[in-house]
Amino acid sequence: MKKDRIHLFDTTLRDGQQTPGIDFSVEDKIAIATMLDRFGIDYIEGGYPGANPTDTAFFEKKRTEKACFVAFGMTKRAGISASNDPGLAALIQSESDAVCLVAKSWDYHVKVALGCSNEENLESITGSVEAVVSAGKEALVDCEHFFDGYKANPDYAMACALAAHAAGARWVVLCDTNGGTQPAEIAAIVAALIASGIPGNRLGIHAHNDTGQAVANSLAAVEAGVRQIQGTLNGIGERCGNANLVTLIPTLMLKPIWSDRFETGIAPDALQGLTALSHSFDELLNRSPQSQSPYVGVSAFATKAGIHASALMKDPRTYEHVPPESVGNYRRMMVSDQGGKSNFLNVLRRRGIEVGKDDPRLDTLIGIVKEREAMGYAYEGADASFELLAHRTLGRVPEFFTVTSFRVMVERRFDANGQLRTVSEAVVKLTVGGVDMMSVAEGHGPVNALDIALRKDLGVYQSEIGDLELADYKVRILNGGTEAITRVLIESTDGEGARWWTVGVSDNIIDASFQALMDSILYKLMKNRKLAGRVAAE
Amino acid sequence: MKKDRIHLFDTTLRDGQQTPGIDFSVEDKIAIATMLDRFGIDYIEGGYPGANPTDTAFFEKKRTEKACFVAFGMTKRAGISASNDPGLAALIQSESDAVCLVAKSWDYHVKVALGCSNEENLESITGSVEAVVSAGKEALVDCEHFFDGYKANPDYAMACALAAHAAGARWVVLCDTNGGTQPAEIAAIVAALIASGIPGNRLGIHAHNDTGQAVANSLAAVEAGVRQIQGTLNGIGERCGNANLVTLIPTLMLKPIWSDRFETGIAPDALQGLTALSHSFDELLNRSPQSQSPYVGVSAFATKAGIHASALMKDPRTYEHVPPESVGNYRRMMVSDQGGKSNFLNVLRRRGIEVGKDDPRLDTLIGIVKEREAMGYAYEGADASFELLAHRTLGRVPEFFTVTSFRVMVERRFDANGQLRTVSEAVVKLTVGGVDMMSVAEGHGPVNALDIALRKDLGVYQSEIGDLELADYKVRILNGGTEAITRVLIESTDGEGARWWTVGVSDNIIDASFQALMDSILYKLMKNRKLAGRVAAE
Repeated sequence: MKKDRIHLFDTTLRDGQQTPGIDFSVEDKIAIATMLDRFGIDYIEGGYPGANPTDTAFFEKKRTEKACFVAFGMTKRAGISASNDPGLAALIQSESDAVCLVAKSWDYHVKVALGCSNEENLESITGSVEAVVSAGKEALVDCEHFFDGYKANPDYAMACALAAHAAGARWVVLCDTNGGTQPAEIAAIVAALIASGIPGNRLGIHAHNDTGQAVANSLAAVEAGVRQIQGTLNGIGERCGNANLVTLIPTLMLKPIWSDRFETGIAPDALQGLTALSHSFDELLNRSPQSQSPYVGVSAFATKAGIHASALMKDPRTYEHVPPESVGNYRRMMVSDQGGKSNFLNVLRRRGIEVGKDDPRLDTLIGIVKEREAMGYAYEGADASFELLAHRTLGRVPEFFTVTSFRVMVERRFDANGQLRTVSEAVVKLTVGGVDMMSVAEGHGPVNALDIALRKDLGVYQSEIGDLELADYKVRILNGGTEAITRVLIESTDGEGARWWTVGVSDNIIDASFQALMDSILYKLMKNRKLAGRVAAE
Repeated sequence: MKKDRIHLFDTTLRDGQQTPGIDFSVEDKIAIATMLDRFGIDYIEGGYPGANPTDTAFFEKKRTEKACFVAFGMTKRAGISASNDPGLAALIQSESDAVCLVAKSWDYHVKVALGCSNEENLESITGSVEAVVSAGKEALVDCEHFFDGYKANPDYAMACALAAHAAGARWVVLCDTNGGTQPAEIAAIVAALIASGIPGNRLGIHAHNDTGQAVANSLAAVEAGVRQIQGTLNGIGERCGNANLVTLIPTLMLKPIWSDRFETGIAPDALQGLTALSHSFDELLNRSPQSQSPYVGVSAFATKAGIHASALMKDPRTYEHVPPESVGNYRRMMVSDQGGKSNFLNVLRRRGIEVGKDDPRLDTLIGIVKEREAMGYAYEGADASFELLAHRTLGRVPEFFTVTSFRVMVERRFDANGQLRTVSEAVVKLTVGGVDMMSVAEGHGPVNALDIALRKDLGVYQSEIGDLELADYKVRILNGGTEAITRVLIESTDGEGARWWTVGVSDNIIDASFQALMDSILYKLMKNRKLAGRVAAE
C-alpha cells in the first residue's frame, strides 16, 4: 500500500530564534541550515528578511541544496496594494524558494493588533499570496491563532484558511500560537477544515508546547489528515518551545502505527545521525544537551535500577522501546546507589575489571562510591574517574608522579599603559620518579593556568601526554551562595580519538578542577599502558 | 452535572528515584512527601521498604497527613505462600496505608525475568493482593509492560489485570513501562479492558516520556475511562522520565475540555502554589529549573518578539493560554536583540527609567546591549545589571567607590601537621570618597574570598550593605575547554526581601565573578537611594 508523504518544515532559525536566551549569528544560521539540509528536512525557514540585519544578510544567498529555502514575513498591510508594500517586497526579492506569510485568523486579533476590518484582512491574505505566486515562488500561509480563533469565530477562521488556499498557497498551516489547545480539539478542528474543502495534503500543523503536548498535537493533526509538520531542533522556540522534530522524526519512522502508513524525506539510514544532530545543535548553542530527551538524551537508554538491570542483561530489548543504535544513541548502565551489586559488577566487567562477587574489596568500592556520590561526585558522568577509583580500591594504580603543592594567583591591576589587566599564574611543584620539579605558567583564568603548568613538564612521561587535549570543561554549583560546593567535569581526548570524563568536587573551584585534571592525566597514562580504557563494546 | 474525580498518584520518591543522577536521602524524602501532601496529592508512593536502607528507614513512620502513604514492592515469589515471602512481609509490616505491587503482565517477561509459568504469576498476583487486603491495607497493582504485553498476548495481559481486580485491588494500574506506546494505542487498549469488565474508576495509568507523550498518554487514558494518573514532580523518572504532574495538574484544572468534566483533590487556590512547588523541588535537587517548562518555567509566559510584544502591551491575554498568576508564575518581557525598540522602551519604563523614543542615547544603549549579549552577557537573566547598564548609558550612576586592584591566591600545600590544605586569600584595594583602603580575607575558594574582602570595608557605605546577602551563584561555561568564556550569574537579597540578579562575563572566572559582585553592591547602593529597583507591578 502506497504510503502518504509527511513533509517536515523546520522553523529553528525563525520561531526558534524567539527562544529567550537564543540569538543566532549569520554564521550560526548557515551552519544550522547546512545540518538540516543534509539530514533531509523538506523545508527550512531561515528567518524574516527585512526585519533585522542578520536575517537580511542570511537571505542574500540561497542557503540550501536540497531543502526548500523559506523566508517568513507578514501579509501586506491593509489599504495598500501588494506591489506597494515594502515588507512584502523584501520577502519576494530575497533569495528564497518560498515565502511563508503569517496571517491573522482570529477576528479579535484582526481588530486589536491590525486595526483593520475582517474583509481587509482577507484581502491582504489573497493579495499577498497572489503576489508571491506570481513572483514564481511557492507560497505558504501560517494561520496565526487558528485554533483559538476557530473557537471564538469558526466561520472567520475558516474563511482565512479558505482565502489562502483559493489564492494558491501550497500549504495552509494551522498554528496553535498560544500552545494551549488539546489533541482532541486539534483533531476535531482539522477534520472540520478538511470537510470544508481544503485537502489534507495542503494543510500543515504548527504546535507549541505550553501544555507539554506539542508532539502529541502534531501527531493528532497528522491522524486527522494534515501532511506538513512544523517544528524545531530540540524543541526550542518561544515560551515553552515548538514541536520537537528530534522527537517527532524517529516516532514517525520507527513506530509501526505511523511508519506503516507514512513516510518522510529522511533516508532510513540517516536516522542514525539523529543523536549527533541534536547534540551538535546544543553544542552550537553552547549548552549541555538535556539528559532525559526522548531518543537522543544520554539517559534515554540508561538504567540504574537493580531489578531492571538484571533483566536487561538477559535481554536488553525487553526494556527498550526502540534499539538505541537506530537513532545513533547507545545503552548505558549506571553506576549508582540504586544499582545493586549485579549492576555494579556488570559495569566493572564491561571495563575489563574482574572482581569476585564476594570479594570484600567490592563492598569497600561500593561503599566509597556511595559516600562520594553523597558528597557530589557524579560518577555516572565521569567514567574515567570511576574506573580510576575502582583500580585504586582494588589496588592496581602505579604511582607515576605526585604533586606536592601548587599555587594559583589571579591579579587585576593597571598595566604600564594604564590599562586594567587581569593576569592568572600557576606554580606547580611535583615529584616524578624521585626527581623534584617545578613548573610555572600563565593562562586565561586560574584553571587554564593550572592546567598548562600541570602538563608543562611531567619529565619521563611528558612525551606520553603530548596528544592529550581538554575537549570540554563544565562547572556545576551544587548549592547556592559563593560558599557553594563546586563540581567540575572535564572531557579529554587524545590522538587515538578516545574520549573520557573525569570529575572533581570541592568547596574550592580550583581544588575541584585540580582533581579532575589529575584524573585525566592519570587515566591517559593508564590507558597508554592498556591498564585502563578497555570498555567492552555494548 | 456531577464531575468525575481524578485521583493523583505521585511516584517521585519511587520511580523518580530511578532518574540517573538523583538519589534521595531520608531527609529529602520527608521534605518532598510533606510538599506533596500539603499540595493535595491523593497518593504518595514513598519507595520500596526492604530494598535499601533509605527506604526501609523512610517507612518506619507514616509520612503523610492527608495523602494515602504507599509502599512499593513486588508480588510474592512463585512457589511459596504470601505469608512466607519476606519481601511481601516487609511491605505489609511497613507503616504504609497502601501497598502498590508491581506485577508482570507480559508473558515474555514472566518467562525471562521471573522464570515461572504464566499460571504461577497469576497466583502470585492473587495471593499477594489478598494478603495486603487481609492485612487491612489498600492494594494497588502496577501491571508492568501492560501495553507491550497486551500487543504480544492480549489474553494474558487481560488475565493479569482481571486477577488483580478480582482479588480486591482498589486500583489496577496500566504501565507503559518502556514508554513507547502512542496515545491512540493507549485509548484502544484501555477501552478493551473496560469492556472486559473492570470499571474505569478502578483503573490507573502510568506513562513514561520516551516519545515525548507521557502527558498526552495519561490524558488519552483518562478520556478512555481511567481515573487515576501516576506521575512525578517535574517529570523526573527512569530514562526520559514519567508523566509530569506539574504539567498535568494545571491542564486538568484550567482547560475547560477537562475541568468541565473532571475534578482533582487539589483546591483551586492551591494551584497558585504550583510554580513554587516545582522550583523548590529543583532547589532540593540542586539543579536550576528548566526555563521552558510548561506553566512553571521562567520562559513559560515570556516573550521577546517585537511584533508579539506590542500586541501583548495592548492585551496580554491574546498571547497567553492561561493567566500566569493562576499557576503562581508571571509575565516576562525580555530585553533582547529580537526585542525591538517598543519592547525595549517598555522594559525601561517598567523600571521607572524614562527616555524618549528618539533620544540618541536609547540607540546607544540598544547597541551596547546587543554587543554585550553577543559577548555572552545574558541580561534576560540579570535585571539588575541591565538596569545599571541603562542608568550608566543614560548617565545617572553616582561613583560610590572604585576598586583600583585586587589579587586572589589559591595555595595547596601540606600544613604543619602534614595535612594537605588548600587556602584561598583575596586582597582588594579600593578608593572610597578619595580615601585609599585595603582589605584582605580568606574564604572557601577564590570567589568567596574575593566576595568577603570586597564587602569587608566600604568605608562610609559599609553600614548600608550589612543586609546584602548572596542567595545564589551560577557558572556557565559558554564554550568548551578550560580557555572557555565564563558567565557568572549572582542572585542577591537584602533585609527588605528584595532579590536581584547580576551578571559578569570573562575568559577568567574570577574576573567574571568580580563584575557580578560589583554590580550587586552598586545596585544595592542605588536601591537604597531609590535610584534603582523601582519595578512596576506587572
